Order: sequence, then C-alpha cells, then structure tokens
Amino acid sequence: MSLSLNQWTTRRWTVAEAVDGCVRHGLEAIGLWRQEVAQQGLAESAKLVREAGLRVSSLCRGGFLTAGGPGEDGRRAFAAALEDNRRAVDEAAELGAACLVMVVGGLPGVVPGEPLSGAVSKDLAAARERVAEGLAVLAPYAGERGVKLALEPLHPVYCADRAVISTLEQAVDLSLPYPVEQVGVVVDTFHVWWDPRLFEQIARAGERIASYQVCDFLHPLPADVLLGRGMMGDGVIDFAPITRAVLAAGYTGDVEVEIFNADVWAADPDEVLATMKARYAEVVVPS
Amino acid sequence: MSLSLNQWTTRRWTVAEAVDGCVRHGLEAIGLWRQEVAQQGLAESAKLVREAGLRVSSLCRGGFLTAGGPGEDGRRAFAAALEDNRRAVDEAAELGAACLVMVVGGLPGVVPGEPLSGAVSKDLAAARERVAEGLAVLAPYAGERGVKLALEPLHPVYCADRAVISTLEQAVDLSLPYPVEQVGVVVDTFHVWWDPRLFEQIARAGERIASYQVCDFLHPLPADVLLGRGMMGDGVIDFAPITRAVLAAGYTGDVEVEIFNADVWAADPDEVLATMKARYAEVVVPS
Repeated sequence: MSLSLNQWTTRRWTVAEAVDGCVRHGLEAIGLWRQEVAQQGLAESAKLVREAGLRVSSLCRGGFLTAGGPGEDGRRAFAAALEDNRRAVDEAAELGAACLVMVVGGLPGVVPGEPLSGAVSKDLAAARERVAEGLAVLAPYAGERGVKLALEPLHPVYCADRAVISTLEQAVDLSLPYPVEQVGVVVDTFHVWWDPRLFEQIARAGERIASYQVCDFLHPLPADVLLGRGMMGDGVIDFAPITRAVLAAGYTGDVEVEIFNADVWAADPDEVLATMKARYAEVVVPS
Repeated sequence: MSLSLNQWTTRRWTVAEAVDGCVRHGLEAIGLWRQEVAQQGLAESAKLVREAGLRVSSLCRGGFLTAGGPGEDGRRAFAAALEDNRRAVDEAAELGAACLVMVVGGLPGVVPGEPLSGAVSKDLAAARERVAEGLAVLAPYAGERGVKLALEPLHPVYCADRAVISTLEQAVDLSLPYPVEQVGVVVDTFHVWWDPRLFEQIARAGERIASYQVCDFLHPLPADVLLGRGMMGDGVIDFAPITRAVLAAGYTGDVEVEIFNADVWAADPDEVLATMKARYAEVVVPS
C-alpha cells in the first residue's frame, strides 16, 4: 500500500505541477481529474505521468447518470450522460488509470448549490434504478477498454444532489452482476466512517475494492458541506481500524488523499504534501 | 393516524401557548420538549395538556449517553447522564407521553457547534457500546413507570456530535432485547429518507415504531445543518411512500411535525400551523 496524491488536494496545481510535486515528495502515484487533464491535454498528461514513472491511482470522475427525469427529455439527458461516461472511460484507458471513479448523481433536477426548481424528481428508487441501468451499458464498454468503474458511495448528506449510492453495501450490491475487472467500489473514509455496517461490508467487498481514499470528517462542518473534508487527524475519524479492514479485505492498491477544503487549497501545495505524508504515517497506517 | 405539533416547530410559543394553538387549529396531540416543560412547570404542563384533551405524542428528549469517554471521569459523566435520563423518564410519566425520544449522543467530547478539543474520543464502536449499556439500565426503569423509550436514528451527518445511532436498522437492533412496551424506535423522515434499507427496516420495525416524525430535507442545506429541516413539500423527500410503509407496519400513533428552521421560527406560529395542516394533507398522507 502506498500513498497517492489526488490532485484536487492541491487544486491550484496543473497536472504537470502535481506530477512534479509527487516526484519531488517521493510519491509513486497520483489521482487525476478530468477537467485538469483536459486543460493539460490528454496525451500530454498521459506522457507526463508515464515519464515520471507514476501510477494513476484513479481518474475522477464518471457518473451523474441520474441527470434526466422521466419522459423524452429524461431519456435524452440519460443518453448524453452515457456518452460523456464513454469519453471518461476512454480517457481513463489512455491514462492507464487503475479505475474511473463513478459519482453516480443525485435526484434528477437537483443541482448542487442551487435552490430546488420545479424540474426536480423526488423518486429516489427510480433514480437508483437509473444508475443500475447506466451501469449495464457502461460496464461492458469499460471492460473492453481494460478500465474498471469504481462506484463511490457518498455520505448520505449528498444523496439529493450528488450520489444516490449512500452506503458501501449498496455499491457492492450494484457491482456484483459484473466481473470484478469491470466494476469495483471506492472506500472513502469521509463518506463511510459512520456506517454501522462498514467493517462487515469492507470484508464483503473484498477484491471489489478498487480505490481507498482518505481524508477526515471535520467538526463542525463548514457552511458548504462539500468542503468538510479535512487533513487526516484534523477531524473525528479513527483511520487505523478502517485501513486495517481494507488491507484484510485484500486491497493492495494505492491510498489516495483527496481533500476538499478551503484552507488546504489556500496553503502552499508543497507544505500540504509534506503534512499529508506525515499524517498518513501517523494516523492512517495501522501501527 | 393524526397530526401532532412538535412544539419546537413553533419555538417561540410556551407550552401554554402551544397547547392553545393546537386546540385552536383542531389538533389532537402535541410533542413537548423538556426545557419548555420545565419553564412552564411540569405539573402545570401536565394539567394544561390534560385539560385541553391533547395526547402528548412524545417528550423530547433523553439520551446523550455517550458524554463521558473512558476512565474515571467518563464513568462519572455516564452516571450523570443516566441520572438525567431517569428524570426525563419521570417527566414523561407525569405528562403521560406516548414515548420519550432518545437522541443518544455522539462521540465523547464532541460538542455540537464547537471546535474539536483534546478531550475527543474517536472510538465510534465504544460509543455505540456505551449506548447499549445505558439502555440496559434505563429500559427497566422506564418500563416500571409505563414509559416507552424511543430510539431515534439521526442522519449520519450528526454521527459525530449528536447520535451514534445512524440507521433505523441499528435502532431496531438495539431495541430488540427489550419488551416492546419499554423500547421502540423513531422514524423521522429527515433522518432516514436516504437509507437504501429504509422500507425493509420500517417493515422489520413493525410495532417497535413508537413515533413517526415528519419534516423535509432542504436543498441546499443552510450553513448550520441542524436547521436544514423544512416544511413538508419544501425539500427533496417523497413522503407518501414512507407514510404508507409506516402504516403498513402497523403504526397507529400520531404524526409529529418537528421543524428546526430559522424562517419557520421567525414566522407567525398560527400561520405555521395552518401551513403544516395543509402540507400534511397534501404531501404526507398517501393518496
């Protein structure tokens, strides 16, 4: 198990700068984001990580399959979402990413940060079915390109606007119809630390665990809950038992640090990496 | 099933005013809060609801059993929490409340709204054991006084600071060792709407459902997530299927509306009651 920088943690860095930063700090892996890769250029990004000898522990992100509600407009939105996901798979393949992280989307018509409009569908069960339907199309497509889709359960506080997959159990359930090479799950401490079934579900997930992401759950949460992700040790999560369970489940991949946090983003990225390495050793790795 | 006003919804009203309001609007039940009852006087409050012919659908709240961490100080804090809960049971008995709502507490040392201090224990499993331990003491005490403890699972966003019971399944699990007259569970739409196991667990809870509370989950959440509870219809929850499931499980008690919301608190309480009645009929009661 080795430490990986999810580039959103050092958000002001370009792909090139983040790759340099990883090398400078002795990291072996990096998690990339699609929009940053697009900015740098896909071929150029692939070349940069290859030449630096870094693994791409994940590409963020596909998903948002629930965008359209029922009816003709909904089918069009769904088709557009599938098309965008196919592009994301292609990008993950070109980057040689270990997985494509899937944030599956919330209730149709609910927009993060925006007031509710008349276009919202409150049918949560239907939105969850839509995810399964999208996966049935995308899993074989990903499989043909050697890309693994990694379903990420998000904290239930994001159920309405970002992901109707709210528990690890639910993610594992959705993954089981597909070969393990095609569909896995993400264990992100921020999203799952509270779950009474966490340890049993990590064991059940076993080789389905495609990505282990760490960051802390801050208290109190900031006004924008999306930015409640903190440096490990700054919040309420007891990491060592979770890391131990992920290892016991057979996970041998990288451990990505993905922090959305205004203070972390404002800090010198080199200092962030130094702190991240120290905290990883102190609180994430089981003693 | 009939509508009940949880008095926190009309927070500026005293017990006497809220009782009058319920009568004026034709409600048959009220949910009371301990601090408001203390303000009015316990015997006086009991007399007011009795003379008005109202049922007390719940008393809020006991719990906070996790206050103390490990060690001697922790045991003292635990003993003090038990003592306070015994007083809450006595008050519920005197008021003739259908149940005492239990908000069981978060991680030891985590204070709602306050930055984390060095006194925090991050051992979530231990905090959960502490709740079971407290329940073993309090359930027989409540049983002897004809009071039912109602374990409330809170939304996982409150796991650190308010309740380590995060799912209905977990609440039902904790209730099962005790007679149904002693320990039940609360189904509060705000806290459980996202849960993939919700409908299966409502059915499993059956006669354990001691209270059905409704309010909406707002989007976006306000800066203080505690105040993200909205009037039914203003948020993302589809109430009818949940109400239908609660009825199918055999619930025959009152439906309490409990809203924590700065705008609702600022409004004329009589208008709040009128809106609450209209929305109850429109979106909560299954057609």
